[in-house]
Amino acid sequence: MALIVQKYGGTSVGNPDRIKNVARRVAEYRKRGDQVVVVVSAMSGVTDALIKLAKEIMPLPPEREMDMLLATGEQQTIALTAMALEASGVRAASLTGAQAGITTDGVHTKAKIQNITPQKVHALLDAGNVVIVAGFQGETADGRITTLGRGGSDLTAIALAAALKADLCQIYTDVDGVYTTDPRIVSNARKLAEISYDELLELAGSGAKVMQLRSVEFAKKFGVVFEVRSSLNDNPGTIVKEETRSMEDIVVRGVALDKNQAKLTVVGVPDKPGQAARIFNSLADAAISVDMIVQNVSHGTAMTDISFTVDKPDLLKAQKVIEGLKAESGYRELSVDEKIAKLSIVGVGMKSHSGVAAKMFETLARAGVNIGMISTSEIKISVIVDLARGEEATRAVHKAFIS
Amino acid sequence: MALIVQKYGGTSVGNPDRIKNVARRVAEYRKRGDQVVVVVSAMSGVTDALIKLAKEIMPLPPEREMDMLLATGEQQTIALTAMALEASGVRAASLTGAQAGITTDGVHTKAKIQNITPQKVHALLDAGNVVIVAGFQGETADGRITTLGRGGSDLTAIALAAALKADLCQIYTDVDGVYTTDPRIVSNARKLAEISYDELLELAGSGAKVMQLRSVEFAKKFGVVFEVRSSLNDNPGTIVKEETRSMEDIVVRGVALDKNQAKLTVVGVPDKPGQAARIFNSLADAAISVDMIVQNVSHGTAMTDISFTVDKPDLLKAQKVIEGLKAESGYRELSVDEKIAKLSIVGVGMKSHSGVAAKMFETLARAGVNIGMISTSEIKISVIVDLARGEEATRAVHKAFIS
Repeated sequence: MALIVQKYGGTSVGNPDRIKNVARRVAEYRKRGDQVVVVVSAMSGVTDALIKLAKEIMPLPPEREMDMLLATGEQQTIALTAMALEASGVRAASLTGAQAGITTDGVHTKAKIQNITPQKVHALLDAGNVVIVAGFQGETADGRITTLGRGGSDLTAIALAAALKADLCQIYTDVDGVYTTDPRIVSNARKLAEISYDELLELAGSGAKVMQLRSVEFAKKFGVVFEVRSSLNDNPGTIVKEETRSMEDIVVRGVALDKNQAKLTVVGVPDKPGQAARIFNSLADAAISVDMIVQNVSHGTAMTDISFTVDKPDLLKAQKVIEGLKAESGYRELSVDEKIAKLSIVGVGMKSHSGVAAKMFETLARAGVNIGMISTSEIKISVIVDLARGEEATRAVHKAFIS
Repeated sequence: MALIVQKYGGTSVGNPDRIKNVARRVAEYRKRGDQVVVVVSAMSGVTDALIKLAKEIMPLPPEREMDMLLATGEQQTIALTAMALEASGVRAASLTGAQAGITTDGVHTKAKIQNITPQKVHALLDAGNVVIVAGFQGETADGRITTLGRGGSDLTAIALAAALKADLCQIYTDVDGVYTTDPRIVSNARKLAEISYDELLELAGSGAKVMQLRSVEFAKKFGVVFEVRSSLNDNPGTIVKEETRSMEDIVVRGVALDKNQAKLTVVGVPDKPGQAARIFNSLADAAISVDMIVQNVSHGTAMTDISFTVDKPDLLKAQKVIEGLKAESGYRELSVDEKIAKLSIVGVGMKSHSGVAAKMFETLARAGVNIGMISTSEIKISVIVDLARGEEATRAVHKAFIS
C-alpha cells in the first residue's frame, strides 16, 4: 500500500464531467489499496471571474481580502471532487489549506509555506478516506487565510508529499510530461522518462513552460520525487528527481527557446568603478529582473558597453529607469532590441563532457545563425539569437544534440 | 460610541453596486464613531448556482461536502464587502464563521450554534476595523465547516449581537419592517414601531414571512433587542423586544393569513383510547408537522371525527400515512380539503382583554365567512376559513381590530 499525492490543475477540474473523470482516476488508485491525497486548483475560469468581481469593487483591492475571496475557488473544487468520489462509491473528505495544516507567512497573495502539520490529513486517511486538499492556499499562524501565488497548487502538492512522506507525488497536467523541447517547434521532440531537479529548473528558467520554479526548488530542497503526467491519458510521465550518475551520460537533456526577452545596450558608459552597480541597482529597485548580462571589454578607451536582457513586458519600465540615469552616468546612448530570442541547452552531462559550447556555436554557425550574447552555467548554455531565426536554431541544436 | 451588528441578506449584496451601497450605509455609522459588525449572506443566486453544480455531480451529495461548498458563497461576500468599505476609506476586515469563533454542533446543513468566542472580532474592532462576518456558517469543535440552514444569517447576526453584548442589532431586508398584516391584502396595513418576541413568533408561525422562527426564539432566549428595517431607504424599522406592560394596551398587534395549509379529516374513528396517538405518532414518524388539531365531541356514538391541518406540500405524504392506518384503526373514511386558509390574530393584549374571540367570530359572521376549525393560544386566535374568502376575511378582521 502506497501513499500517493496527486495534483490536478484548473483545466482537469474545469466542469462537473471533468471532475468526475478525476474521481474515476483517483478511485482506481484507491481501489487497488493505495492511500490517496488529492490536491486541486480552482475550476478554470473561477479565479478570473472572482478577480473581475473584485475589480468592479475597487481597482486595487486589499490583498488580505483578495486571499479571502480567491481561496473560495479551490474550496468549491474540493467539495465537488469529494462528492464525485462519494458518487463513485469511494469515501472522501475535503480540507481547506488551513484545515490541512498548511501554515504560511503573512505575505498575502504570494505567501510562502512555513510549516505543515498534517495530523488531520493522516486521521482522515487512516479512517479510510481519500483526502481532497485545496491547493494554492494556507493560513498564517494567527489565522488569516493566505494564497501562494502562481503555481501554488503544485507547491501545495509537493509540500504535502514532503510532510506526509508520500511514496509518490503526481502532478497531472494537460501535457504528457517534460519534453526535450517544445514539440510545436521540433516535431520529433521526445518525452523524457526522467530529469533532474536542476535541469528542470534551468529549463523552466529558460522559457520552457512546465512548472513554476519555486515548486521545483521546494521539491529539490526536500527531496520530493514527483512525476509530471497527463490527466487525459494513462501514459507514464516524466519523473523529476535528484540527479544520478547515469543521468550524466546524456549531455543535453533539453533545448528551450524563450521568445519573451528583450535586450538593452547602454552604449558608451564611462569606464569607472560603480557604473554597472548603479545600473543594476536601479533596475532592482524598480523590481525588474535582469537575465543575461554582458559587459564588453573596453579596448583601451575610457568607454564600455553594457548589454542585458529583461522580460519583454518589463522593457518600457527598464528603458525609463536607464534613461533616468543618463545625466548622472554620462553614457552615450541606450539601444533596445525586442526582436531577439534566448536559446538554451540544459544537461547535467555538461559537467563531465567538454566541448559542448563549441559544438553548439558550430551548429549555429553552420545554420547561419548569429549569436548575440552568451551566458553559461554549470549545466546550461544560453545564447541570444535573432527572433526570426529562433525556431530554426532550436531545430538545428536539437538535431545536433538529441536527435 | 455604540456597538452595532448589522445583517444584510442576499438581495442587499446581490451585485457589486449593491455591495457598495451596503458599504456606504455601514460607513455612515462608522464615521459617527460607532463600532460596526456586519453579517452578510451569499450574493443572491450564488447559493442556488452552487447547489446546481453539486447536483450535476450527484443527486444527494454528502452534507459535509455541501457545507464545504455552500460556505464559499458567504466567504465571497465578506471579502467583497470588506473591499467596498476599504474603497470608501473605512478600515475593514472579513472573517469566516469559523474565524469569528462561531462553534456549532455537527449536524451538517442545519447546524445549531453552540458557542461563540468572539475574541478575534473584538481584537479587530479594537484595532479600528469594521468587521465583516460570514453569515449562515460555523465550525464544529473538531474543525469541520457547517452551515445553519434557512435563515441562518439572521441567526448569526442575533447570536453575535448576544455574544458581543451589542447595543443594537439591525436586520436589513427588502421591507420596511413588520406590518399589521400583508400590505398586498390590506392596503392600509401599518408598519409596527415595536412588537414582542412572542407576537412575532406567533405571526411568523401563522404565515407572515418576516423571519425564521428560530432566529426570533434565539433573540428571545438571550434578550437580544433587534430592528427589522429596509436596506433600500432610511426609514426606522420595527423594534423586536421583550413585551412591556404598555404593549398590552393594543389587543391585536397583527393579522396573518396562511394560504399554505390543507385540512384532513379522519371520519368515523372508533372512540377508543390511543386512536389519536396512533395517528399523530405516525405523522411525526414521517416528519410531517401538524398544525391545528380538532377532535369532535362524540355524541353518544362510539365514533369520533379527527381533523387536522398540515402544510400543503406535505398533504400527499400525510394522506398516504393515514390511509396506511385504515385497517388497523378501522376508521370510516378520510376526507381532505386543500381549499382552506388559516386566519390568525396575534397580540399580547389578549391576555388582559376579554371577548376578543367573540369579536373575531362576530366580525367573520357579519362578513358571511364560515369558520371551519378554531385554535387558540394565550396571545393568538386562529380559524380555518374557505381559501376563496381568506383575503376578504383578513380585511374585515384587520378593520375590526386595527383600523
